[in-house]
This record gives sequence, C-alpha cells and structure tokens, in this order.
Amino acid sequence: MIKNVIVGQSGGPTAVINASLYGVVSEALSQKDAVGNVYGMINGIEGFLNGQIMDMAPLRESGELELIRTTPGSYLGSCRYKLPEDLSDEVYPRIFEKFLEYEIGYFFYIGGNDSMDTVSKLSRYAEQTGSDIRFIGIPKTIDNDLILTDHTPGFGSAAKFVASTVREIAVDASVYDNKQSVTIVEIMGRHAGWLTAASVLARKYKEDNPVLIYLPETAFDPEVFLSEVQAALEDTANLVVCVSEGINDGKGTFICELASDVGVDTFGHKMLTGSGKFLENLVRDRLGIKVRSIELNVPQRCSSAWLSATDLSEAADSGAFGVKCALAGETGRMISFIRKPGEDYELTFGTEDVNLICNQEKAVPREWISENGSDIEKEFIDYALPLIQGSVTVPEENGLPKFAYRK
Amino acid sequence: MIKNVIVGQSGGPTAVINASLYGVVSEALSQKDAVGNVYGMINGIEGFLNGQIMDMAPLRESGELELIRTTPGSYLGSCRYKLPEDLSDEVYPRIFEKFLEYEIGYFFYIGGNDSMDTVSKLSRYAEQTGSDIRFIGIPKTIDNDLILTDHTPGFGSAAKFVASTVREIAVDASVYDNKQSVTIVEIMGRHAGWLTAASVLARKYKEDNPVLIYLPETAFDPEVFLSEVQAALEDTANLVVCVSEGINDGKGTFICELASDVGVDTFGHKMLTGSGKFLENLVRDRLGIKVRSIELNVPQRCSSAWLSATDLSEAADSGAFGVKCALAGETGRMISFIRKPGEDYELTFGTEDVNLICNQEKAVPREWISENGSDIEKEFIDYALPLIQGSVTVPEENGLPKFAYRK
Repeated sequence: MIKNVIVGQSGGPTAVINASLYGVVSEALSQKDAVGNVYGMINGIEGFLNGQIMDMAPLRESGELELIRTTPGSYLGSCRYKLPEDLSDEVYPRIFEKFLEYEIGYFFYIGGNDSMDTVSKLSRYAEQTGSDIRFIGIPKTIDNDLILTDHTPGFGSAAKFVASTVREIAVDASVYDNKQSVTIVEIMGRHAGWLTAASVLARKYKEDNPVLIYLPETAFDPEVFLSEVQAALEDTANLVVCVSEGINDGKGTFICELASDVGVDTFGHKMLTGSGKFLENLVRDRLGIKVRSIELNVPQRCSSAWLSATDLSEAADSGAFGVKCALAGETGRMISFIRKPGEDYELTFGTEDVNLICNQEKAVPREWISENGSDIEKEFIDYALPLIQGSVTVPEENGLPKFAYRK
Repeated sequence: MIKNVIVGQSGGPTAVINASLYGVVSEALSQKDAVGNVYGMINGIEGFLNGQIMDMAPLRESGELELIRTTPGSYLGSCRYKLPEDLSDEVYPRIFEKFLEYEIGYFFYIGGNDSMDTVSKLSRYAEQTGSDIRFIGIPKTIDNDLILTDHTPGFGSAAKFVASTVREIAVDASVYDNKQSVTIVEIMGRHAGWLTAASVLARKYKEDNPVLIYLPETAFDPEVFLSEVQAALEDTANLVVCVSEGINDGKGTFICELASDVGVDTFGHKMLTGSGKFLENLVRDRLGIKVRSIELNVPQRCSSAWLSATDLSEAADSGAFGVKCALAGETGRMISFIRKPGEDYELTFGTEDVNLICNQEKAVPREWISENGSDIEKEFIDYALPLIQGSVTVPEENGLPKFAYRK
C-alpha cells in the first residue's frame, strides 16, 4: 500500500545536513510504487506539531533540490524540542493523529544525539500502539560523537574546514618569523575532541604548526600548558596551539569557566569568554609574549568553503539508504557507517538500534592522543584523512555561493 | 646596463600579496636584456638590513613560483619596520651600500600605507644622493584604504570572504526561525569600513540579512543601535548585524574601549574585548534576547577559500606592470588601479606619486552609507561587485590546500 514520507532535520546545522535531505527526498521520490507524497517538516517535530509541512516534489521539478544538496544549514529549519520521557504523555497521540491525517508511512529524522532520542521514542510508541509507521534516523553531527558508526556525516567537511583554516592561520602567523608569538585557535567540541584533533592534518611537514593540540578527553592543567608553550617556542618562534572549547580540568570544570565568573565591563555586563580567550590572557599575563586567540566559531559547521566531496556524497547516500531500509521494513534504526578493513578506504552502510545510540557520546580513543595529552597520534590521521578527500564546486551567482532557501 | 632586482613584502598579509610577488618575479625573470638576478628580501627591509635575501629564479624552475601565486600570506615574510623620518640617519647609507653590494637597480615593495612610506623615503634618499636605483610600490591591503587608486589588491578576495561567510552565518542563524535571535559579526577595519560594507553583498534578496551594517565612518550610538535592533527584529526574527572593529562614537573613542578597561577574570587578567563582543553583552543585558557574536578574525586576510579570480589576476598583473614601469625609468611611484568609466568593468594600471599616498587613508564616501548610518547604498554595491567575480581553484594535496613555503 502506498504511503507518504515525511522528513525533518533537527539539532545544529552542518555543511552537509542538506545533502542527507537531498538523499532522502530524491530516493523517496524515485520509489513510485511504494511512496506517495514526500513531505518536509518545517522546524522538526516541533513545527510538525503545529502543522508546518511542505511538499518536496516541486523542488525537484524546479531544480531547487539539486541546489539544496550543496547548501549548508538546515533547509527545513531545525528545533531543539525534546519529546517527553513518559510515552503516555498526551503529545504522542497528537503526533500520531497528524501522521494519520497526512497518511505517513515512513518517518526520517536527520540529526545527532537528541534527534535519535526522538526517533527512539516515536518508534517505541509506535510499537506500543501497534502502529506500522517506520522510523529511521539519519546521522549528522560535526562532533563525530555518535556511537556504533565509524563516523558521522558533517564531520568530514568540518574537519577539512578546521585543517585548512588552521593551515592558513599558521601561514599568517609565520610572516613575522623574526619575532616570537603565540596564536591560540579554539575549535568546537564541548565533550569530544574529534574536530580539534583534525587540526593535526594542517601540518605540512613534521614539526610544523599546530605544534600543540589539546582535547577535552585529557585533563588540562594551565601550569603544564604554560611550560609546554615555553618549550615549544624554543623550536617554533610563531607557535600555533589548537584547543577544544571543552578543555577541562578532568574533574568536571571547563577551563573557560575559570574566567567567566568575575569579568564585567564598564556597564556591569558579565563577560563570557571561551577557552581560547582565557588561554590568550594567561599567556600574555604570565609569559609576556605577543599572543592572540581565534575562535573558529559557527563557520566550522556552516561553511561551504571546504566541503569534502567524500563527506557530501556519503551524506546523500546515507539518506537514500535510509529510505531503502524503511521500505524494507526496518524501524527504530539509525543508519550506520561501516568502514571496510584494509588499507584502501571503502564504506558501506548498515543500521543499528537507535535506542542504543541516543544520549551516548563517543570520545576520541585515549591511545590516539599522545601520552602527555598535547598531540595527536598517527592512528587518528589514518582514520581522518580519507574523510576530507575531494573538493566540491558550489554553484556561484554574481561572485558568491548560491544557496537554496525556503521562500 | 644589466642590474639586479630586489622585491619585498611588508605589513599584514593578504590572500593575494603572493600573487603580486609572482607578478614581479615572473616579469623580472622574463626581462633578460635588462635584469640580472631577481632577489627576494626576507622579512622586508628589516631582514634586508641583516643580509637576508634569496634568489628567486630557482623557484620558477621548480614550479614553486606557480604555487606561490595561490598561497596566502607573505611568502617572503614581513616586517613592520618604519624607516627614520630624518634622511640623514645612518641607516640609509647602510641600506644603499647593500644595494651596491648586490648590484640592485630596481626595488619593489609590496604593501600598504607604511610600505609606501618606505618607498617614499628610499626614493627621496636616492634622489638626494644621485643614486639611479628605481623604487616602485605595489599596493596591497584588505582595508582598501589607499588613496589615488580605485581599489587595492587583497580587498576583492577579503570582500568575497566576508560576503560569503556572512551569507553562510545568516543561513546558520535562520535554522531556528521560530525563535528570536541576534548574531553580531565583527569585521576587520579600524578606520575604514570598506570590508564591513562588503557584507551587504551577502543579501540574497532585499530585506535579507545582514539587515544592519555599521562602519567607522559614522558615529555609533549604543542607544540608537539598541532601538534599531529592536525595530529590525519586528521583521526579521533571526537578525544578523555586521559591525567594523573600529566603530566609534565619532569623537575618537572606539566602542570596544568602553569595555576593555574594567573586565578582569579570576586570575586578575585584563579581559580585552572587541566591538562585536561588547555589543553582544549589550544586547543580552538590555534586550534579553538570545545573542552571539562572531569575530571573522585573521581568516579574512589569509583565507584562500574565497579567492576572487579578478583580485588574484589584478594583483599579479600590477606586480608585472610595476616591473615595466621601473624599467621604463619611473621611480618613487605606486602602481594605481584605474577603472574605466562605463557600465562594464574594465581596469587599467597607472602610477601615482608615492609621497602623496603614504600615511593617507581613504574612507568609504559618506553618500555610500545610508543617512541613518546603519545600511549601505547601491553605489557601493556597484563599486564592489566586479571585484569579487570569479573563483580560483587552489591546488589540493591529500584533501587540503597545497601552499608554498620557504624551506
């Protein structure tokens, strides 16, 4: 029996979350024997509850769908709405009545941890109530912290952005190489250091910048940091240091929290600061060396400048694979990325129980970090390099990237 | 008589200052009848004084010169060394003895305001002492603030970076479009707002973000700003505001100085803050709206991600043109960019007296800024659009941009 498809996006955007949307919609529209209409929900499950949906088929006709593929951000909008833990809450029948109204047979949710939590709850509620709607999670997160998958779409492009940008920052830092300086680059990642670790790829040769790299996975000691900076300056006059926003003392206190309590400006506004800014002040104050900090900020997750062709195509393919799994009868599953063993990089897709994935976080393995916690080992480089391969030409219009947007 | 060429780079780097170096070196190496060796000075005139020079010819043989063309930053290194005002200072004979030692006939200096000051002083000293060495300045600055030239190389690529990145940030900001938010983007430009003005190009349609844009050319009033933000939020739930780092009260006080006096963290470190961070705190405190600030920082001047093909080729051509001018007998001149009148963009080069240019700054014309000082007029868009046209494919190696560097 022909049923309709609905797809949504949730959580923070990435450079390729729309490629996954493209994959789901293209595949669903091509399954004419099984799928009727293909709907997008605006602002995730929260918007869906308010009846905000759109028909996706016209986007293929107009060529907009192809443009969506290389547009960063969430085309359908996003939400951070968490469904109640209690499956007897009144919101569940409301959602399922809407499913009935739109004759939904297949539900796809593209997102990270929290989004998988939504897929988990909806699929469990369906099981409880005998609904045959199928729920599939399509992974996305630049943080690369989902378990039971080799990696997540969005990470490859974000890693390529971080490594390229840090390489450029290192070039910039080196132009006054007759004077000592320290440049601290703060990279996203509150709990997992995958993205910060990717800065190691920026090195053009051994001993090149970034010389020091610190992840949240190891305890950070400001005093040890200062001595490591001083030692590194002996060999590298213009030192670049990369740190995760989430570096912490190993006992639950973020380094940036050491600064955010007291600072107030002339108007009495509390001054919030990041780990990079904190370390900048520390180096200036204690070592008296020229220092600056650079927060890579949201371009890490929304820039189309350094799209990885590998990441982009895997994102689209995982969306299409999700549709096939749903049509084959799977539900309550997340699409997983499986790397074939061996020297050459090759990827296949599978599915994993979404209930095991949601609300879990995968850290960088301790053995991929140097013993003293200030460098990244070859194992990580071997893992990450295949994920940043290939570049993507984003369509340009009048000298600027052309992006799809909801009118 | 055959003489040698020396070329240097000075001041802050840009994405295309090496393209100008490529232009000078390629053209000089091709002038076999007039030019002997082509030397590069390491770390500008300061390094030259210490005898730090390199032979550039081998770079052409090895293919490195072609790679230099698309490498951001200053391949030869830079300096911020200011020559003494007093031309009877002992440093001048020292420099000219070195010129004699290396049989220099032609001196090229690629840089901004301060670098033109160096060209001015050396050419005046040469005139005083009867030296026939010719001194030519090749302009560069992302700030676009040199007078007597339509624009400067480096600005086009920086403008393209700013407009593309602000467009991406606006996409990112819009994904939670069911909640109000303010995103403040801080853009380089202490005294001139050219680069901040380029953020207007990010608009995909009229009324699109960035809705508010503030330059240093008009007086900034935090209270007026707050009311303009509130008014703009009525139409645009996710507001993006672009500000120059140098916005000021019109009486000589930078807005960021209002914050930098008092803030200290738990270790007593003084907390320096930018104009974006200051306004973020102001909006949070006074309007209670979700707000974040993003400092585009050094990638504005060192990113190869959004190279403008127009900018890159003009930078290289201006370097080559400089060599021809020197060989034709010109000295004490800066290469100027002359836009032909008419609808279609066409550029020719000329030269201007470097003494008139150095230590001057060109502001954005007041009539190119809206009357209330919070938007940019069409005249600027017509001026800037041709400068960001065309994209450049930077060579990639192992998934990352491949850059030239001195071994």
